[in-house]
Amino acid sequence: MSTTPVAVVMGSKSDLEIVQGAFDILDKFGVKFTARVLSAHRTPAEAAAFAASAEEQGFKVIICAAGMAAHLGGVIAAHTVLPVVGIPVPSAPFNGMDALFSIVQMPPGVPVAAVTAGKAGGKNAALYAIAILALNDPGLRAKLHAFRQEQQAQVLAADAELQEKLNNR
Amino acid sequence: MSTTPVAVVMGSKSDLEIVQGAFDILDKFGVKFTARVLSAHRTPAEAAAFAASAEEQGFKVIICAAGMAAHLGGVIAAHTVLPVVGIPVPSAPFNGMDALFSIVQMPPGVPVAAVTAGKAGGKNAALYAIAILALNDPGLRAKLHAFRQEQQAQVLAADAELQEKLNNR
Amino acid sequence: MSTTPVAVVMGSKSDLEIVQGAFDILDKFGVKFTARVLSAHRTPAEAAAFAASAEEQGFKVIICAAGMAAHLGGVIAAHTVLPVVGIPVPSAPFNGMDALFSIVQMPPGVPVAAVTAGKAGGKNAALYAIAILALNDPGLRAKLHAFRQEQQAQVLAADAELQEKLNNR
Amino acid sequence: MSTTPVAVVMGSKSDLEIVQGAFDILDKFGVKFTARVLSAHRTPAEAAAFAASAEEQGFKVIICAAGMAAHLGGVIAAHTVLPVVGIPVPSAPFNGMDALFSIVQMPPGVPVAAVTAGKAGGKNAALYAIAILALNDPGLRAKLHAFRQEQQAQVLAADAELQEKLNNR
Amino acid sequence: MSTTPVAVVMGSKSDLEIVQGAFDILDKFGVKFTARVLSAHRTPAEAAAFAASAEEQGFKVIICAAGMAAHLGGVIAAHTVLPVVGIPVPSAPFNGMDALFSIVQMPPGVPVAAVTAGKAGGKNAALYAIAILALNDPGLRAKLHAFRQEQQAQVLAADAELQEKLNNR
Amino acid sequence: MSTTPVAVVMGSKSDLEIVQGAFDILDKFGVKFTARVLSAHRTPAEAAAFAASAEEQGFKVIICAAGMAAHLGGVIAAHTVLPVVGIPVPSAPFNGMDALFSIVQMPPGVPVAAVTAGKAGGKNAALYAIAILALNDPGLRAKLHAFRQEQQAQVLAADAELQEKLNNR
Amino acid sequence: MSTTPVAVVMGSKSDLEIVQGAFDILDKFGVKFTARVLSAHRTPAEAAAFAASAEEQGFKVIICAAGMAAHLGGVIAAHTVLPVVGIPVPSAPFNGMDALFSIVQMPPGVPVAAVTAGKAGGKNAALYAIAILALNDPGLRAKLHAFRQEQQAQVLAADAELQEKLNNR
Amino acid sequence: MSTTPVAVVMGSKSDLEIVQGAFDILDKFGVKFTARVLSAHRTPAEAAAFAASAEEQGFKVIICAAGMAAHLGGVIAAHTVLPVVGIPVPSAPFNGMDALFSIVQMPPGVPVAAVTAGKAGGKNAALYAIAILALNDPGLRAKLHAFRQEQQAQVLAADAELQEKLNNR
Repeated sequence: MSTTPVAVVMGSKSDLEIVQGAFDILDKFGVKFTARVLSAHRTPAEAAAFAASAEEQGFKVIICAAGMAAHLGGVIAAHTVLPVVGIPVPSAPFNGMDALFSIVQMPPGVPVAAVTAGKAGGKNAALYAIAILALNDPGLRAKLHAFRQEQQAQVLAADAELQEKLNNR
Repeated sequence: MSTTPVAVVMGSKSDLEIVQGAFDILDKFGVKFTARVLSAHRTPAEAAAFAASAEEQGFKVIICAAGMAAHLGGVIAAHTVLPVVGIPVPSAPFNGMDALFSIVQMPPGVPVAAVTAGKAGGKNAALYAIAILALNDPGLRAKLHAFRQEQQAQVLAADAELQEKLNNR
Repeated sequence: MSTTPVAVVMGSKSDLEIVQGAFDILDKFGVKFTARVLSAHRTPAEAAAFAASAEEQGFKVIICAAGMAAHLGGVIAAHTVLPVVGIPVPSAPFNGMDALFSIVQMPPGVPVAAVTAGKAGGKNAALYAIAILALNDPGLRAKLHAFRQEQQAQVLAADAELQEKLNNR
Repeated sequence: MSTTPVAVVMGSKSDLEIVQGAFDILDKFGVKFTARVLSAHRTPAEAAAFAASAEEQGFKVIICAAGMAAHLGGVIAAHTVLPVVGIPVPSAPFNGMDALFSIVQMPPGVPVAAVTAGKAGGKNAALYAIAILALNDPGLRAKLHAFRQEQQAQVLAADAELQEKLNNR
Repeated sequence: MSTTPVAVVMGSKSDLEIVQGAFDILDKFGVKFTARVLSAHRTPAEAAAFAASAEEQGFKVIICAAGMAAHLGGVIAAHTVLPVVGIPVPSAPFNGMDALFSIVQMPPGVPVAAVTAGKAGGKNAALYAIAILALNDPGLRAKLHAFRQEQQAQVLAADAELQEKLNNR
Repeated sequence: MSTTPVAVVMGSKSDLEIVQGAFDILDKFGVKFTARVLSAHRTPAEAAAFAASAEEQGFKVIICAAGMAAHLGGVIAAHTVLPVVGIPVPSAPFNGMDALFSIVQMPPGVPVAAVTAGKAGGKNAALYAIAILALNDPGLRAKLHAFRQEQQAQVLAADAELQEKLNNR
Repeated sequence: MSTTPVAVVMGSKSDLEIVQGAFDILDKFGVKFTARVLSAHRTPAEAAAFAASAEEQGFKVIICAAGMAAHLGGVIAAHTVLPVVGIPVPSAPFNGMDALFSIVQMPPGVPVAAVTAGKAGGKNAALYAIAILALNDPGLRAKLHAFRQEQQAQVLAADAELQEKLNNR
Repeated sequence: MSTTPVAVVMGSKSDLEIVQGAFDILDKFGVKFTARVLSAHRTPAEAAAFAASAEEQGFKVIICAAGMAAHLGGVIAAHTVLPVVGIPVPSAPFNGMDALFSIVQMPPGVPVAAVTAGKAGGKNAALYAIAILALNDPGLRAKLHAFRQEQQAQVLAADAELQEKLNNR
């Protein structure tokens, strides 16, 4: 059984710009991941086969990034009971509203959970996957708490910098 | 090989209200059809298998009605090169905007053609399927022309009735 | 430490109609849950305190249902690293579009994962929480697989019933 | 009778950028086409005359690309029973939402089938027309199957390339 | 030449509920009108013929009410240089947003002017037509001024009634 | 100078249902108010005159409720430097999205502050006016704090009731 | 009395880019116009005074261009019974959807007629004003017919050019 | 007690571009302000603490700028009874529609008042805060009246410049 807990699936290689944020976060947290280009419509059999074997392969969470009629998350979720996190990828002309609806509005019985649309979503999908994995990995949970403190520190630093700047004018 | 040219697929039996309009038109034109309840997410294998064999079974056009993250048309189209007509089924709370985007915004390479959302879409999907079939069926084409004349006559009658009503006040 | 893995939090008791679907699924799967009415705006301290202690209390997943400017999920997520699942609750006049945006569009760093808006979301949030819990509970995973088969069987039965009905007319 | 099965009609020469994708696909498949600039509002008589004679001229499918209050597909469909495929052309300031609604929301009785908005729609409209023509052209159908395999191969190649890239870092 | 300055055209007799407001205003101002049921898609020739002869028939303003892909105003405007006033008729599931876009977003060169969607639009289309006619009819203009005063009086009366009600509690 | 600090202005008496929530809150807090029916379009002079004299009359905050192209708040704000709070009143067919945009999107220089659309907005507009008045009225501020505690208590009671209900099943 | 029949009013000098299209059309048709910068919110008295005197000054049609909460047309219409044509001016971040709603959704009794949003609207507003003026100016009407023919010729030329281009490849 | 009446809080330093407009207005009016970077999600405790102490610190109005699921205003408002003015900050891909809904649609009981989205909102939030402060500061009110006159003068100058330009062509 694989020791790679996260699979990041994208519908097209053009989605790499968005999922790069997920890669970066997963790397930062030292979480192994596989990344796949699998299209719900151009490689449906491969997408289904991947999803159907994901549990057996030892994956714990599947992140799916797709745009337009973003069916990828739904296709994956239809073939696995693993939690699927969907990233709505914005594209012209409807700016990701199509992808958001296609990902989040799954019918009752087969959920996909959507995170923020676009680049923030790449990062947030990875953090969400890590939050799930951390439920049984105290070391990972500690890293999540540390990450939150790091974020807090960044905001406080920005706050201090702003005070400084305003005081000095 | 089947002599049933049209398959009407719906994602849930609750979509029957919408596809009834398609049944009525197909019956009116004497076009045989099969209707299936197949869910992109709850019966993905059956949906894929149906689509993959649809050409061999002799179907010519597949009508797909689905709501919310309406992936059904996309799943069917991913497994067949037959023309797929999608009907966006409105549902609470987003009134079919989710279904319309999920159906029409297919990525380049695997089209689904969307017709009107809701009840008018049931009727229009069937008429569109008939227009396709009529390309090689002069009798059917004649019926389409007759149907257009019938529609014209109904509008003219409504027009005449309105004139009458306005003149008599 | 609590053996109750799921907390279902709602922003107002009027959200009960939506979260009832979550209760039903959790009961069906034999998953213990706590339910709370906690308002991001009317009881912010209690909401924050609940979230801050949720990990220690042994909760694994927190489901948050809220409407309008649905900040509840974000407030909870700001105080815990546990995975938070958000249900957009539709309400007049914007039909849940406000709640969907308020839940899903979390900034980078603190994700909330949104499921379907409305009643389907109640059910799907619970199924998503169960999918997370099932990662470390083979019995629960078996139930999820069984549930999928049950859903499949329901669709196939609806399909058969439709065939029957069409054949007999 | 013409041996040109497809007519590509656009409402303005500025739509050429979008329909070029249709031309490319039709050329790739060896499907003859005529292209016309016909405006629903500036040349209504010519548009109506074209549509009214399209069947007699031997056309099988009419692709219509238009933006804004995109009436072109509807005007063409009103004068022919041939299948009409509409491409919503995005334009400022409403980014094609106006065109999508104007194309897809045809009233019951006179359908137009909409494909993806924008450039993907140019390609998809052509593929949809080819799917219709392929119903009676086994050679064309074989090409469609080959095209699907080609697409599949491209995705698999992108997938392999991604694996390679990730393994080598 | 006709002495009927206004033609009220609707796409379907179901639009009568909306245009009744126009009839009432035109009657109140003593402006003669003709009303027609003419469909852009089911009776395109009749709609075009009507519009093409409208100027010769002596009409001055044409009011068009239509829903969904509301092409009626555009079809009429394409065949006449008379001012066309469009009323977006709301219908399920998109509540008139489709009709509004289809009416107002006319391409450069052939304008249609849209008024309020729904019942208020029936009334406002008539008032707008009257404002146009009043440019050369001092009597009509006087009636418009009187109507404005009447409206003002109604608001002032409602205001007084509210004061009364609040003072008496 | 008047001792009535709040004026509640509505564009039509049909808005009373929405502003009743404002009346109730103002009464509960013992804040005197005047209510007016003034239309931006049917009584523009009265609306302007009211606004222009509002400061002199001793008003401190003006609440404006209007629907559709909700210009009332803007017209009032154009004639006074007093803070104006706008309540978007939902109406068919666009459900208050038109009113929200018309109220909140004031150009730079003349702000109107929008609160929640619909009934919640009636209540919130009054609370916002009270928050402004409380800046110089310690008694009123104490009441606001008490109101917050009352709200908190209601949520806690609903929470307790829910626990009770869940424990007893 | 003025012999200038059209007034073009804009809410800000930044709208000049949009109204330039109106100026060009009016110049082309030889229709005299006045242009004003008048703000509904920053110069409400001047806007009202202009509108109130517009009839007396001999204006026949008033074109109003405004963005955001585009009240200008409504303010003008509230003070005159002359026909008012509104141009929704797009601006960040809502791309003119705010302006469209603010212009078209006038309450019953005081209509503003909206044309296309953005640059096309500048042109169309002028053409609409000319269509109104042409009702009593046969020379102007002849120019409108000629303009239509000119537009038709341009489309036919584009059509011929496209044929040429396609034939020569 | 502080003599700084306004606090400008932003969710991220990237919002500075928007709030700069607020700083400029506050400086122009000589109103002292503090600016803080406080994140509803990354520094929830600091945000809550700031809000809870804001009244005691002597602040009168709090301006909150945030984008996406813009909870900042709601979090602040949950911990203070001071008036909170929210600026929706636009960001990709939903252009501030998410922020607008997240700010304005506060549930009944805890209002946040939203001003214009984007840069105009920075300026308008400050003007709104000044309007509130001016209720008890005659000097500030005089400055507001002067500012209105300045704005009026700018529009009149732009109007004169346009007349000049048109007369000279």
